[in-house]
Amino acid sequence: MEKCWMDKPHEECGVFGIFNKGDSADVIMDTYYGLYALQHRGQESCGIAVNDDGVISCHKDLGLVNEVFTRDVLDGMPRGKMTVGHCRYATTGTRSSANAQPLVLRHIKGNMALAHNGNLTNAAELRAEVELTGAIFHTTSDTEVIAYAITKERLTAPSIQAAVVAAMDKIKGAYSLIIMSPRKLIAARDPYGFRPLCMGKLGESTVFASESCALDSIGATFVRDIEPGEVVVVTDDGIESIRTHCGKGSGFCVFEYIYFARPDSVINGTSVHLARQRAGALLALSHPVQADVVIGVPDSGLDAALGYARQSGIPYGIGFLKNKYIGRTFIAPGQKQRENAVRIKLNPISATVKGKRVILVDDSIVRGTTSLKIVKLLREAGATEVHMRLSAPPFLYPCYFGTDIDSSENLIAYKHSIEEIAQIINVDSLGFLEIEDLPKLAENTKCKMCDGCFTGHYPIDPPACSAKSKFEYKISENTND
Amino acid sequence: MEKCWMDKPHEECGVFGIFNKGDSADVIMDTYYGLYALQHRGQESCGIAVNDDGVISCHKDLGLVNEVFTRDVLDGMPRGKMTVGHCRYATTGTRSSANAQPLVLRHIKGNMALAHNGNLTNAAELRAEVELTGAIFHTTSDTEVIAYAITKERLTAPSIQAAVVAAMDKIKGAYSLIIMSPRKLIAARDPYGFRPLCMGKLGESTVFASESCALDSIGATFVRDIEPGEVVVVTDDGIESIRTHCGKGSGFCVFEYIYFARPDSVINGTSVHLARQRAGALLALSHPVQADVVIGVPDSGLDAALGYARQSGIPYGIGFLKNKYIGRTFIAPGQKQRENAVRIKLNPISATVKGKRVILVDDSIVRGTTSLKIVKLLREAGATEVHMRLSAPPFLYPCYFGTDIDSSENLIAYKHSIEEIAQIINVDSLGFLEIEDLPKLAENTKCKMCDGCFTGHYPIDPPACSAKSKFEYKISENTND
Amino acid sequence: MEKCWMDKPHEECGVFGIFNKGDSADVIMDTYYGLYALQHRGQESCGIAVNDDGVISCHKDLGLVNEVFTRDVLDGMPRGKMTVGHCRYATTGTRSSANAQPLVLRHIKGNMALAHNGNLTNAAELRAEVELTGAIFHTTSDTEVIAYAITKERLTAPSIQAAVVAAMDKIKGAYSLIIMSPRKLIAARDPYGFRPLCMGKLGESTVFASESCALDSIGATFVRDIEPGEVVVVTDDGIESIRTHCGKGSGFCVFEYIYFARPDSVINGTSVHLARQRAGALLALSHPVQADVVIGVPDSGLDAALGYARQSGIPYGIGFLKNKYIGRTFIAPGQKQRENAVRIKLNPISATVKGKRVILVDDSIVRGTTSLKIVKLLREAGATEVHMRLSAPPFLYPCYFGTDIDSSENLIAYKHSIEEIAQIINVDSLGFLEIEDLPKLAENTKCKMCDGCFTGHYPIDPPACSAKSKFEYKISENTND
Amino acid sequence: MEKCWMDKPHEECGVFGIFNKGDSADVIMDTYYGLYALQHRGQESCGIAVNDDGVISCHKDLGLVNEVFTRDVLDGMPRGKMTVGHCRYATTGTRSSANAQPLVLRHIKGNMALAHNGNLTNAAELRAEVELTGAIFHTTSDTEVIAYAITKERLTAPSIQAAVVAAMDKIKGAYSLIIMSPRKLIAARDPYGFRPLCMGKLGESTVFASESCALDSIGATFVRDIEPGEVVVVTDDGIESIRTHCGKGSGFCVFEYIYFARPDSVINGTSVHLARQRAGALLALSHPVQADVVIGVPDSGLDAALGYARQSGIPYGIGFLKNKYIGRTFIAPGQKQRENAVRIKLNPISATVKGKRVILVDDSIVRGTTSLKIVKLLREAGATEVHMRLSAPPFLYPCYFGTDIDSSENLIAYKHSIEEIAQIINVDSLGFLEIEDLPKLAENTKCKMCDGCFTGHYPIDPPACSAKSKFEYKISENTND
Repeated sequence: MEKCWMDKPHEECGVFGIFNKGDSADVIMDTYYGLYALQHRGQESCGIAVNDDGVISCHKDLGLVNEVFTRDVLDGMPRGKMTVGHCRYATTGTRSSANAQPLVLRHIKGNMALAHNGNLTNAAELRAEVELTGAIFHTTSDTEVIAYAITKERLTAPSIQAAVVAAMDKIKGAYSLIIMSPRKLIAARDPYGFRPLCMGKLGESTVFASESCALDSIGATFVRDIEPGEVVVVTDDGIESIRTHCGKGSGFCVFEYIYFARPDSVINGTSVHLARQRAGALLALSHPVQADVVIGVPDSGLDAALGYARQSGIPYGIGFLKNKYIGRTFIAPGQKQRENAVRIKLNPISATVKGKRVILVDDSIVRGTTSLKIVKLLREAGATEVHMRLSAPPFLYPCYFGTDIDSSENLIAYKHSIEEIAQIINVDSLGFLEIEDLPKLAENTKCKMCDGCFTGHYPIDPPACSAKSKFEYKISENTND
Repeated sequence: MEKCWMDKPHEECGVFGIFNKGDSADVIMDTYYGLYALQHRGQESCGIAVNDDGVISCHKDLGLVNEVFTRDVLDGMPRGKMTVGHCRYATTGTRSSANAQPLVLRHIKGNMALAHNGNLTNAAELRAEVELTGAIFHTTSDTEVIAYAITKERLTAPSIQAAVVAAMDKIKGAYSLIIMSPRKLIAARDPYGFRPLCMGKLGESTVFASESCALDSIGATFVRDIEPGEVVVVTDDGIESIRTHCGKGSGFCVFEYIYFARPDSVINGTSVHLARQRAGALLALSHPVQADVVIGVPDSGLDAALGYARQSGIPYGIGFLKNKYIGRTFIAPGQKQRENAVRIKLNPISATVKGKRVILVDDSIVRGTTSLKIVKLLREAGATEVHMRLSAPPFLYPCYFGTDIDSSENLIAYKHSIEEIAQIINVDSLGFLEIEDLPKLAENTKCKMCDGCFTGHYPIDPPACSAKSKFEYKISENTND
Repeated sequence: MEKCWMDKPHEECGVFGIFNKGDSADVIMDTYYGLYALQHRGQESCGIAVNDDGVISCHKDLGLVNEVFTRDVLDGMPRGKMTVGHCRYATTGTRSSANAQPLVLRHIKGNMALAHNGNLTNAAELRAEVELTGAIFHTTSDTEVIAYAITKERLTAPSIQAAVVAAMDKIKGAYSLIIMSPRKLIAARDPYGFRPLCMGKLGESTVFASESCALDSIGATFVRDIEPGEVVVVTDDGIESIRTHCGKGSGFCVFEYIYFARPDSVINGTSVHLARQRAGALLALSHPVQADVVIGVPDSGLDAALGYARQSGIPYGIGFLKNKYIGRTFIAPGQKQRENAVRIKLNPISATVKGKRVILVDDSIVRGTTSLKIVKLLREAGATEVHMRLSAPPFLYPCYFGTDIDSSENLIAYKHSIEEIAQIINVDSLGFLEIEDLPKLAENTKCKMCDGCFTGHYPIDPPACSAKSKFEYKISENTND
Repeated sequence: MEKCWMDKPHEECGVFGIFNKGDSADVIMDTYYGLYALQHRGQESCGIAVNDDGVISCHKDLGLVNEVFTRDVLDGMPRGKMTVGHCRYATTGTRSSANAQPLVLRHIKGNMALAHNGNLTNAAELRAEVELTGAIFHTTSDTEVIAYAITKERLTAPSIQAAVVAAMDKIKGAYSLIIMSPRKLIAARDPYGFRPLCMGKLGESTVFASESCALDSIGATFVRDIEPGEVVVVTDDGIESIRTHCGKGSGFCVFEYIYFARPDSVINGTSVHLARQRAGALLALSHPVQADVVIGVPDSGLDAALGYARQSGIPYGIGFLKNKYIGRTFIAPGQKQRENAVRIKLNPISATVKGKRVILVDDSIVRGTTSLKIVKLLREAGATEVHMRLSAPPFLYPCYFGTDIDSSENLIAYKHSIEEIAQIINVDSLGFLEIEDLPKLAENTKCKMCDGCFTGHYPIDPPACSAKSKFEYKISENTND
C-alpha cells in the first residue's frame, strides 16, 4: 500500500516453501506467517499450494495475505507435509486472478507447483517455440514458460530435478524458483542470482524463502543463501545440492539492498539495514551540507537517514507521523481536498523541523510528485531549508529482471538534470548516491551486483524484442481467427 | 441450492455467448442476465469472457452469478462486441476456482475462450497423448482437453473453425461448446446432441445459449436449435453453418426434459413444461390410484403433478409452501433439531392434505432420504394415504455425458426393488414412469433420446477406463518425482 | 424481494419469542429458524435478543436473517432460556439500523426487550407527553413509545405484566407485542387484534409467533391464537392469561388472508391457503368469463388462481417460471434493457398460454405498472385474450394499522375507474373481489375483520394528526436550538 | 491493533466535529479524514452524524473507519453543513454496536447528536435519578446520562447551550463533548480538562477535534485548545465562548503525553513528540547506564528512545522491523507456534543489537508479558545486555477518567517490586520515569496534570461505588420482573 501511494518502484514477487520430514508441523500455517513476512514483495495476489501425499491443492486469489487467507480458507485446506507459497505485486489494469501463483499443473510424469520471483529475458522466444507444438498458455507469466521448459525436459530427463537443471540451459534471465513435485521440494536460483533466495531449518522442516525475515517469522534458523545457479532438492532422504550452473558470475540486484528487501533481512551475508545505513553514510560524505536535523521519509528512508546523521554528526530526528490505519479501502480525497492527500498519511512533526535546516533522506525518486508534496509539508511546518538526499542513484534505464523500473516518460531523472529536479521538487539542495559507491553497500558480499537501472550495464543481454510481451494484444496480422 | 437440499442429480453446466455486429449492445450485461437464466444448470462457479477488439478479458470465480458479478466487477470489465459466459455445478470436495470457465488461453495463432457443457468419453486418452509432447494441464476439466485438440489442429488447419471441425474427429462424448477467437464466435454441438444448444437474435446480436429461457431473459428471439454435429460461426460478415459432422444419429438427454432444463425452455421443438405435463399424464395412465388430491414437490414436481391431475381427473392441489429465503448461508439444524430440517424449507399446507388420500408427484428419487422426510411431513399434516409417483424411471446406470448420475451405493433403486423402496420411504403405493413412455415426452422431436441412466444403453461407447480421471491423485507408481 | 419488485403493499413486521423452562433447547437457533419462517413479513432488518439469567444481549442489523445471522454471530451469542426475535420491512429512504428491533433497554426495575408488529394511532400524543418530562427518544418507532408507556406504569404497578396491562389503557392502535423481562416472557395483542399472534408448544418451551408457520418451522405444536386484548405471561411457574382488555370487539386485517400471511399459516382458525382459494372461487362467481386456462402470478396469485379454476371448471395452468436466483444484489437493467426487466424474473410459459384465452389471477394492484408488463409478456407469448382477476377489492383508503397502504397518487384505483384501469394495463376484462365477499374468506372466524383500506371504515379512529410523525424533521419553529 | 497486541492501556475515545458556514465544504469527507487521524484513540466502533438543515442522520457501527465507512456508505449519506464524528475503543466482551457513538436522539425541543470522550464519576447516581421518572436507557454509556442531564435542563433553560452549561453543574468527571443541535455545534470540556479538545479553522468551517493532528489531516489551522470548563457554541452568527465553569483548576491526563496522543499533536501548547523526547532525556538523567545503543519499541517507544540517546550520548539505533500488514484479521499462532507470536509482528534487527549492550525504551509496562518476549528476542538476536527504560512511572492506581487503567491483578507493578519485575522480564536493569519528573514533560503548560494512575491522587473524588456500573447485570433482588 505504501508503495502505491509513495511513488516507488515495485518488486514483483516473494516465494516461500517448506518441507516437513515428520508429521509434527502445520506447514500451512508456517507458510501463512512466512507470506506475511514477505508481503512487502507483492501485494496484488497471493497463494499457497499444499501437497498431501502427492495430491496438490492450491488456494490463491487477488488480495493481501490477510484477505485471501481467512480462517475458513485456512481451516478448509488439506494438511500435508510440503507447501509452496507466493505473493505478487499489484500491476495496474484489470485486476485479474489469472496470474496469481503458485502455478499448479499436471504433466506426463505427475503434478507440480511452481512459485517464481524474477523475469526471463527470452520468454517470448521460448513461448513461441512451444506454441509451435500446439501448446496453450493460460497466463501471461514467465512462470508458465518455465513450467513448459521443465516438462519438456522431463520427457527425457530421469527425474524432476534433472529436468529443472536441463531447463536452466534454456531459460535466460532472473529467477528464484520453488518447485513442488509429488515427493520433492526444489529451490533453484538463476546463475546470476538476481533475486534473493535462502534456506532455513525449523525442527524437521527445511524452509526456503525469498528473504531471511520470513525464516525469522516462523522461528526458523537461517542456514545459508541458495547460491547463484544452485538447485537444492529436499526429499525424505535428505537435502541434495546440484551446482551444475554455479560459478557463471553474479548480478544481485543492488536495489534489493536499497529499497525492496526488508531491513531485518540478511542477504548474501549483508544486513539490509546496515547496507542502508551505509548508503546514508556515503551520502553524508559525497553530499555534505550544513543543517540542524536529519530526517527520513518513513518507512524506507529511516535507515539511510540514521546513517547520514551518524556520519555527519548532525542530529537524527523523527520528522513525520505515518498513519498506520490507511489501507486498501481508504478513499482518497477528491479534487477539492487533494491538497491534503499526503498529509492524511504523513504528517510532519513541527517540533522536529520548525525553524530548522532539514536534511530529508529518501531511497529514490521516480516521478517526483510525492517528493514535491512532502517538501511542501516540511516548509509549511516551518523548515527553513530542505536538503534532499537519495540513497540510490537516479533511475535512467529499464530493469528486465523482475521489477517495474522502466526507462520512460515517467522517470523524472530520464528527462531532467539534477538541478532541474531540485527546482521541480523545490529543495535547497539535492544529492543522489554516487554510482561508484554502490559496491560499498555490501562490501563483504563476494558477488558483483546488477546496477543496470542506474548504469545501463546488465550482467546478461536484455531481451531482443520489446521488454515485455503481453498476452493481451489487439487483433494481430498473423491470424484470421 | 434446491438441488443440494433435495437430493437430486446435477447437471454440469450452462453456456452462453453473444456476438454484436454493431456497437449498440452492452453484451456484458446481456450475458449477465443470460447467466441468471441458466443458473439452474450450475451453481458452483460462473464466468464471463469479453472480447474487446481481439483482447480477451475474463472474470470468473466460485459463487452464484449474483455473488461473482457485483456492480463493481461488471463496471470494471472492459466493454466489447463478443462474450462467452458459463455457469458450473457445485462439485463436492475442495471449493476451487481452478476449474471455473470460460477457459481463456493463448496458442500459436492467437487467443481463445471456451465454454463447455458436457463430458468427453475419451478425455483420458487425449490427455495422455498431448502430455507425451510435454503439454501441461492447469485444470481437470475436459474443456482443456478440447482446447488442446483444437490448437493442435490449428497448427495445420486454415482457420479456427476448420480446426474445430477437425478436432471433432478426435473428441468423443457430449459437448455443447461456445468458442470465442479474436474475430469470431463459434458454437458447436456434438454429433449426438446430448446437451441442448440454441441460437437467437436480438437486434444486431447473435446469441447462443444452452436453453431458450436465456434468450427470453434478454428479449432475444429464438431462431433455432444448433443441430447435433453442427458448427455455427459468426463473424462481422455473417453466419456460417458447417454440417460436416451432422447426421450421425442422436442422443439428446431425456432427463433434460424431466428435470434439468427450465420448464419455460423449448428444446428440439418441445416445450419442457409440456414434456413434464405429459410425463405426469403418462404416469396417471400407467400407475392410476384412487385419491382425493394430486400435489407436486416444489418446484420440479409441479408440472408433472398438473399433468397427472388433468389426466386422472383428480383435483390438483398446492401441497407445500417452499421458503424462498433459504440460500447458501442458511445454517442447517444440528442433531437436536434435525427432524425439522426439511420443514424449514418445505412446509406442508394442512388444508390441502388433511384427511385426504394424496398423490405426491416428484421427478425422481436418488437416495430416498428426502422423500422419506416429505412423506412423513404429509402424514403428520393429516394425509390418510400417500401415493408417490415419479416422472422418471429408476436410476440404474451411470451417466457419462455431463451429469453426476452414478451407478453407486447411493442410488436407492440400484439396491432395492420398487416394493422395498415404497416400504423405505413409507408410501402406500409407488409408481415410476415406464421406460417405454420416455419417447412420448417429446414426440414431435425427431431425434432419438439418450436414456442410458435408466437402461444402460448408450448412443456411444462409455469410456474404457473408469468414468472420470481425476487430476488430484495420490503419489503414483509411474514417477519418482 | 419479490415485494419490492412486484409493486405490492408491505407488512411491517414479524415477531417471535420463546421461553424454555428446562435447559434442553437452543432457543437462539429456534428463533433463527422462526425468523426464517417470518421473513416474508419484513426484509429490512432483523434481530434476536437473548436472556441469559437476567442479562439481555441483542444482535440486530439491517439485512435478511441469512445476512445478519452468520455462523460467527450465532456462535458468538450467549445462550439463555428466553429470546425475542423480530424482522422488519424495508422502508424507503436512508437505510438505518437505528429502528431495528428488538428494542433492548433498562428502566428503574431492570431491563427489558420488546418486539412489536403494528402501528399506534396516538403515538405522537404519547411521545409529546413523555418528552415534557425530559425523556429522550433514540428511534422513530412506536415501539419506543410503548416502552415508555410500560416503564411509566411500572413505577407504580406491582409487576411488569401489571404495567403492560395498565399501559394498554394508554396506547391506541394495532400491536402484537412480545416483551422479555429478566424472568418473564410476555405476549400481548391489542384489543382489536389487528395483527396475528399465536402460541405454540415444543417440549418444555412455550413459543409465540406472528404466524403458525413459524411454529411449524421448529416443529412446535400450535396451541391457540392469542386473543384480541389478551396478555399471556410465561414464567418458570407456568402460563398466566390476563384478559382485562378482551372482548372490546375485533378488527383482524383481512389483507393478511389475501396477501401478507404465508399460505401455510392458520390464523384465527382459518387456513390462509383456503381463504385465498375461496377468494378465487368468489371471483369466479362474481366475475366469470369464458376462457381456456386460469393462471396465477407467482407466488401470491397461485392459491386464488386454483380456487378460480376449480370453481369455474376452466383448467388451472402454470403460466410463469419465476427465477429464484434473483436477490438483493441483482443489478436491474438500465434504460436500454428496461423492457425485459420483468422477464428476467418472470418468464411466461408459452406452452401454457399460446393461442389461449387466459384468466390471470393476482392478489391486488397498487400502481399497475407491473401488471401492465406481465400482461404484455402474456400477449407476446401468444395469449389471445387476457382477463385479469384480483383477489382483493381496489385500495382506496390509507391503512393506519401497520402496513404501508396509503391513499395517495400512487394508488391506481384512487385515480381511475375500473374500466380505465383495464385500459391502462391492457386487459380484455378486469374484475376485483367484491367488498361484500370479504367476510366469506374466513367464515368460521368469529371476529369481524378490518377492511379499512378498501372501505374507509376503521374499527377505531385513525390518528388526529397526519398518519405518521417522523423523527427526521426539518428545523422547526418551536425551538431555537 | 497494536494496542491489543502490545499489552497497553486504552484510551476510550476520539471526537470530531465541523460546522461549515457556507456550502462549499464536504463536511462528511472532512470528518472521515479527521476520524482516520483519531483512530488511535479508539478502534472498536466509529460513527458520523450529519445535520442536513435540521435533520440529523447517523451511520455508526463496530469496526475501524475504513471498515464502517465504505464508499457506498459515504456516498449514501445526506450532505449537510455540520457533523459530529466519534471513534471508540475496543472493549472486551460481546462485540455490540449498541454503545457506538455519536448518540442521536430527540427530546422535547428537537433533536441532538452527542459525541463524548471521558468518564463520569457520578453516572450511577444520575442514572438512578432519572430512572425514577420513568426514563429508559438504551446504552450503558455515560453519554446517555449526559444527554438526559442536558434534556432535563432544556425543559427550563432558554437555549441548548444554556442547558449544557446548567448540566455541567450536575455531571462530575472527565468529558470532552461535541454536541450538535438543529442549528448549532457545541464543544464543551470538563472544568479539569482531563481529556484534550481543540478548535481549528478551515475556510468557512470551524472544526473541533480531540487532537490537533486531526486538524492537520484536513488542512485546517489550529486556533486554540478549548479551555477546561469552557463551552464554545458555533452558529451561523459566529462563535460564542461561555466560561462559567472555567478556572476551577486543572487535571490534564499526563499519560496523553506519554502514550495516548499522537506524537504530531500539540496539546495545551506542548508538542507530544517533544514531551516524549523529554521523558527519554529525563530517564537518561535519572537512570543512566553504560551501553552501546538505544532502541525504542515501535512505534510508541521511539520518541523517548531518541530523547534518551541524545541526552546520554549513546547512539540511537533502529532495533526492530514492525510488520505493517498485520491487522484485525491476522490469525494468531496456536499453541505450537506461540513462541513466535511476537516475532511475526516485531522482528529484531540483528545488525543493530548483536554483540551490543542495549538500552530498550518503551512507554509503560502493564502485565509485562510482551516485554518478556521482546527482551527474549533481543537476547536471541545477540544483545549482550538489555537495560529497559520506561517513559512512565509504574501503574499502581485505577483511572476513573476515561481509560482502562485499573488497579488489579493484571498490573505487574501492583504486585511486584521493580527488582522483581526486572527479574520477571529478564532485563539487566530497569528504570521507570520518576514521578517528580512528570511535570517537566510539559513545562510550558500552565495547567496541573492528573497523575492519579501513578500516585493515587486525583483532581476530583473518584466514584463512591464501584468504578463502573454495568448495564448487563444478573437478575437482581430488587425486582420481580
